[in-house]
Amino acid sequence: MDNFVFRNPTEILFGKGMIAEIASRVPTGGPVLFVYGGGSIKHNGVYDQVRAALKAHNLIEFGGIEPNPDYETCLKAVDVVKKARVQFVLAVGGGSVLDGSKFIAAAACFTEGNPWDILRTHGSNVAAALPLGTVLTLPATGSEANGFAVISRRATSEKLAFSSNHVFPVFSALDPQTTFSLPAKQVRNGIVDAFVHVTEQYITCQAAAPLQDRLSESVLQTLIEVGPQTLAAPKDYQARASLMWSATLALSALLGCGVPQDWTTHMIGHELTAFYGLDHAETLAIVLSGVWTHQLRRKREKLMQYGRRVWSVDTAESAIAKTEDFFHSLSMPTRLRDYGIAADDAVGKVRARFAERGATLGEHNDITPDAVAEILHSRA
Amino acid sequence: MDNFVFRNPTEILFGKGMIAEIASRVPTGGPVLFVYGGGSIKHNGVYDQVRAALKAHNLIEFGGIEPNPDYETCLKAVDVVKKARVQFVLAVGGGSVLDGSKFIAAAACFTEGNPWDILRTHGSNVAAALPLGTVLTLPATGSEANGFAVISRRATSEKLAFSSNHVFPVFSALDPQTTFSLPAKQVRNGIVDAFVHVTEQYITCQAAAPLQDRLSESVLQTLIEVGPQTLAAPKDYQARASLMWSATLALSALLGCGVPQDWTTHMIGHELTAFYGLDHAETLAIVLSGVWTHQLRRKREKLMQYGRRVWSVDTAESAIAKTEDFFHSLSMPTRLRDYGIAADDAVGKVRARFAERGATLGEHNDITPDAVAEILHSRA
Repeated sequence: MDNFVFRNPTEILFGKGMIAEIASRVPTGGPVLFVYGGGSIKHNGVYDQVRAALKAHNLIEFGGIEPNPDYETCLKAVDVVKKARVQFVLAVGGGSVLDGSKFIAAAACFTEGNPWDILRTHGSNVAAALPLGTVLTLPATGSEANGFAVISRRATSEKLAFSSNHVFPVFSALDPQTTFSLPAKQVRNGIVDAFVHVTEQYITCQAAAPLQDRLSESVLQTLIEVGPQTLAAPKDYQARASLMWSATLALSALLGCGVPQDWTTHMIGHELTAFYGLDHAETLAIVLSGVWTHQLRRKREKLMQYGRRVWSVDTAESAIAKTEDFFHSLSMPTRLRDYGIAADDAVGKVRARFAERGATLGEHNDITPDAVAEILHSRA
Repeated sequence: MDNFVFRNPTEILFGKGMIAEIASRVPTGGPVLFVYGGGSIKHNGVYDQVRAALKAHNLIEFGGIEPNPDYETCLKAVDVVKKARVQFVLAVGGGSVLDGSKFIAAAACFTEGNPWDILRTHGSNVAAALPLGTVLTLPATGSEANGFAVISRRATSEKLAFSSNHVFPVFSALDPQTTFSLPAKQVRNGIVDAFVHVTEQYITCQAAAPLQDRLSESVLQTLIEVGPQTLAAPKDYQARASLMWSATLALSALLGCGVPQDWTTHMIGHELTAFYGLDHAETLAIVLSGVWTHQLRRKREKLMQYGRRVWSVDTAESAIAKTEDFFHSLSMPTRLRDYGIAADDAVGKVRARFAERGATLGEHNDITPDAVAEILHSRA
């Protein structure tokens, strides 16, 4: 186990009717930016619950945050924040709304030049942010209890992540009932997203961290158990609740304490979204087994452990096959061709992007642009 | 899964040499009360590391916190705090030093009458506390990352717990190397203490919380794996590190989110310490299987799950036997007679104590003083 620093100060308000609990936690001293997405919260009752809880607050609405939140849209919100002297940001929606709101909260306090620098430096220059609370309606990204966010810039086909302790939500309200009306595709995406968040922290070289291994396996086993239940019975509260809590813990920084982390699948996946507009989880499902197969020599021991403990199979190859089967069972495609993307085209674009950045990936930080090309080729 | 609120703001500084990291986290604006116990930190290098890290700080030492920290001793520290206008409490040692320091931090800010009321009301009247940091040297209680503390009053043979969000440590430094020199008995006690912290949150009625179940099983499995390793090879850093992190997570409030909790074993155990002076973990090892056997009808399903997943046995009875065997393998006795305590004497004293308080115990809150008597009788 390596040295680590762990801190996660977010207060989780979990369960039926818990949105009402935000009333006492959102400060009344100044305007609150109420950020949301495409408006689904107006149909599923969440908008009304938030309005009812915050009757006494001065809410300024900012709707229209896109899936893969757009840099330009977020900058418009930053203008509103500055003009109205907003004191608190309330993000209501899924991971994209939360990520966009984190960027808004940080950019509003960013005084060292162009806000794009926050992303270019992956957040290392964020010195402050407005306080932020969230009401989560889509279990997937874990953004409700971490300091990470991913922002897209459509003008340049870029998608970059940043992290900062300053953008941990002060609170996050998670009512599983708000997820009953989600389209099956979004549920499927959320299951895969949470699943791959765990594997990026777990399917690495062995690291003498048996507790962290078991915690990761616990989340994976639970996703495998309750994910299909939520798809089969959308109003099964208990399954929804376990899915929601699993997705939160999948990326709350706990699982990665003191262990190597990979994130290659995410880094390649972000480029596929940037170039082709695929959903985030769709890209992860394409790339994951490509990375594992390419890194089989180094990951074999952990893949075998994963296979034994999670899937009751004996080989790394079987563990990879079981994972693909699981994704397929959720109606999640795992090949570039399933989206009509020519592998050669993807390989060319993505390799060039990593080459241009001089970036290497993986827990050993030695997956080169050529290796990325091989991985993508294998996912034709 | 029930509704829950979860927040754990403690920053964990984990690993080799991490005590140095407290330097930037302890405020320099006023005197710091440096609390420790019997002086072992002066022999194992921890005292020197703390002094070296805090050269620039105004430290006021308060040593002599006992195992099962004494109320009267803590009150003396509160006097020091008030006279010197202490601004921060730094607890350096094991769970007793940390618990005592939490009480000192709360009592120093307590203005509503007698500080014993903090314990009598289990902390519900704590409205503020001095900020507190810890350097942990003994993995066991989880006090380094929770808002709980237990204080003893020898004059009246009382041992009471309190909890408050105000006494979560701001930071806790955990260097597994500081545990290399612990006596085997303290290591054994720590393993059992952490183990029973988990079971109090896990061996209950079923609660449709598969993730929480698996997280609890993860900690138990890891304690079973690394506990004996640390006893066999005291300087095995990796085993020590996993034991330390397991003990922290065993009672960081995460495992108990949204599930029923029992705590009968602790409540009875506290009385055995109060009346007979046994170590906390020794009392838990005596009482645990008595509670499980007495509550077998209600806990059978969970005990069978625990047996299957943790011990690979099929019955609740076998799971209980395996647990006893595990304690014995750590040289931990599990009977009152092992300490020369007559069961009749213990039954009389402890039943009277619960009857006097009108207290019932357990996840159904219906374990009466008579049931406590039956449980203790079975542990003769």
